[in-house]
Amino acid sequence: MVKRNPNMAKLQSGYLFPEIARRKNEFIKKNPNAKLVSLGIGDTTQPIKPHITKGLADEASRLGTKEGYSGYGAEQGLEELRDRIAEKLYNGAINGDEVFVSDGAKPDTARLQLLFGSNVSIAVQDPSYPVYVDSSVILGQAKGYNQKKSQFGGIEYMKCVPENNFFPDLEKTKKTDIIFFCNPNNPTGAAAARGQLKQLVEFARKNKSILVYDSAYSQFISDKSLPKSIYEIEGAEEVAIEISSFSKPIGFTGVRLGWTVIPNELEFEDGTKVNKDWNRIMTTLFNGASNIAQRGGLAALDKKGMKEMEQTVSYYLENAKVIMASMEKLGYEVYGGIHAPYIWVRVPGKTSWQAFEEFLGKANVVTIPGVGFGPSGEGFLRLSSLGNRQDVDEAVKRIERSLK
Amino acid sequence: MVKRNPNMAKLQSGYLFPEIARRKNEFIKKNPNAKLVSLGIGDTTQPIKPHITKGLADEASRLGTKEGYSGYGAEQGLEELRDRIAEKLYNGAINGDEVFVSDGAKPDTARLQLLFGSNVSIAVQDPSYPVYVDSSVILGQAKGYNQKKSQFGGIEYMKCVPENNFFPDLEKTKKTDIIFFCNPNNPTGAAAARGQLKQLVEFARKNKSILVYDSAYSQFISDKSLPKSIYEIEGAEEVAIEISSFSKPIGFTGVRLGWTVIPNELEFEDGTKVNKDWNRIMTTLFNGASNIAQRGGLAALDKKGMKEMEQTVSYYLENAKVIMASMEKLGYEVYGGIHAPYIWVRVPGKTSWQAFEEFLGKANVVTIPGVGFGPSGEGFLRLSSLGNRQDVDEAVKRIERSLK
Repeated sequence: MVKRNPNMAKLQSGYLFPEIARRKNEFIKKNPNAKLVSLGIGDTTQPIKPHITKGLADEASRLGTKEGYSGYGAEQGLEELRDRIAEKLYNGAINGDEVFVSDGAKPDTARLQLLFGSNVSIAVQDPSYPVYVDSSVILGQAKGYNQKKSQFGGIEYMKCVPENNFFPDLEKTKKTDIIFFCNPNNPTGAAAARGQLKQLVEFARKNKSILVYDSAYSQFISDKSLPKSIYEIEGAEEVAIEISSFSKPIGFTGVRLGWTVIPNELEFEDGTKVNKDWNRIMTTLFNGASNIAQRGGLAALDKKGMKEMEQTVSYYLENAKVIMASMEKLGYEVYGGIHAPYIWVRVPGKTSWQAFEEFLGKANVVTIPGVGFGPSGEGFLRLSSLGNRQDVDEAVKRIERSLK
Repeated sequence: MVKRNPNMAKLQSGYLFPEIARRKNEFIKKNPNAKLVSLGIGDTTQPIKPHITKGLADEASRLGTKEGYSGYGAEQGLEELRDRIAEKLYNGAINGDEVFVSDGAKPDTARLQLLFGSNVSIAVQDPSYPVYVDSSVILGQAKGYNQKKSQFGGIEYMKCVPENNFFPDLEKTKKTDIIFFCNPNNPTGAAAARGQLKQLVEFARKNKSILVYDSAYSQFISDKSLPKSIYEIEGAEEVAIEISSFSKPIGFTGVRLGWTVIPNELEFEDGTKVNKDWNRIMTTLFNGASNIAQRGGLAALDKKGMKEMEQTVSYYLENAKVIMASMEKLGYEVYGGIHAPYIWVRVPGKTSWQAFEEFLGKANVVTIPGVGFGPSGEGFLRLSSLGNRQDVDEAVKRIERSLK
């Protein structure tokens, strides 16, 4: 038969979340009476707010009418939605035609890798969202996996730990073609200061790299002095692509809606506009986000919708406060959780998976082992604030009881 | 700056449909009073039927409630939907866990290419849906473009023309790793007989190829003796992947819902199950089809929904009859249109683009130039029956008036 794609063979066991699901199910089998509470996977739990729900439901109903029916839309998204994203979320720093609507930040990451091809080198934050590395491996950009270092060859891992304020030491960072940077960060919850982002843009400009800036959590930034978009930094439009998402701030994880911005100024070495090739990728390999999801996105960006978005974000950030207070009370070192829905907790004297098993076994609370996000995540757990308040309270109570 | 991906540079100008849109817009600019009617792009026009619409709208509303909210679903799709596809559309010839739900056949084609990687060789029908070739080029499977032959090097083009009954001469077909085969065919509308599909499966088995069988139009097959799925052919489960879609039969082109079947029996040379790697691709690079779309798909597969699907398909097939009758009356050689929504018309003494311009200029009717689907499509036009009856009638009237 056909030879297996050698890049697929290079991938390491299980994408993190299925592996956690497996261990969780194993635990349930052995402990059928245990009632688990999850501070784990970053899945939203709060119902979509009324005005945005109406945007979705109305469009769904309209599709059953002669006047309201629509088939294929532009693969790049509804013009109205592209314009509104540019206006409401970027204050006009970019134009609607530089916004490409999609079914989410994760599939856009995969398509960006297709855009770049196999011959580019990448850098990622360590720890980071596993999809950057895995998609790079699938495209064949990476060399073999080094078990000892828990790293793939050919990928530059930029250490982001409490000791460097979760910002990479750029002087020691090797030049690569592409730099993935998630801010506010998944998993550490760190949000970069303006000065740090200036350094990052400067670094990309100097090295002639493309910065892929993942702002999926930018709506959680509560401090107005912190940039929400990379385009708030001068010169970023010449080096940066921004991926983002409606998933977390309005509960669209299951509805599927995101976008990618590629400014007209961004060019490849030969002068080809990057968004010209991106347009070809999107029209050739993608067929547009669901029209229903897009109408929901439009509703989220009018006055009522923006208010609802704030309410949803506030709810989760309140959860984060509860979790942080509790973990601090227990004496843990705690990071993130202020401008992001994730709390990053150091588990001294334990590996991440040991701590994962301890939280699961003693408190019946599901967490995410930090090492799943990269070797520098070892010794940490990621706790998510995206649950129901009731579950968060219960989880915190159990942790306080059984892990003090 | 970063070097442009050389595979992107290899792609030929514009994906077919944007190019048609460009020429159409140019025509409108020059003829602002002309009222165009389209028999062109295969976009659905009929409202989604009531029961299926209710499936969509109810789920959209449910997302606004505490009890009904759902976030991320399994990337592979709702278990219920996977099972129902297996049961209702495959009569149990495959299992639900072999069905992977997605946002459509086009994006699944791109992901399949990621699964296979750069080192495989592919064969396509000539003419064929452009995405197979373009995705292959983007992955780097193809060599340079030969302008004279209008073909990429390294891709095996299987001629499908009236002279061979639109079925490739397999004795002359070179062995490749992957064979893309669309049936009923886009663009020719041809539906293969059982004996032909047996030959095809036999050919794939003999060559140890993987057959990627695109059945996006299978619901249009009106003759019960013709197979709707490749798994009706013995032994296909060991060589065939089937891609399919809800787009055309229930008007979900804008809603976005499709699926891919990879049987457990299908293995790579080293014994790795193909659907194990596919599961990794889907969980790593995709985030699930919209939950709203999936609930609509479930509604389409109950008794009422299946009835509605039949009604929608019948409507379009009636359109096809009208178009075919008219073209035959004008003396054209006409193919397809019976088991597919496409009619394939020979335009003697003209190139496809000349005929396209003639239909546009004289009858103000938009068509698709056959050559856009491959060199053997030269001298043909593809007419789509997916329009409104009124538009079809108007188009036919104009064609009969101005092109006789």
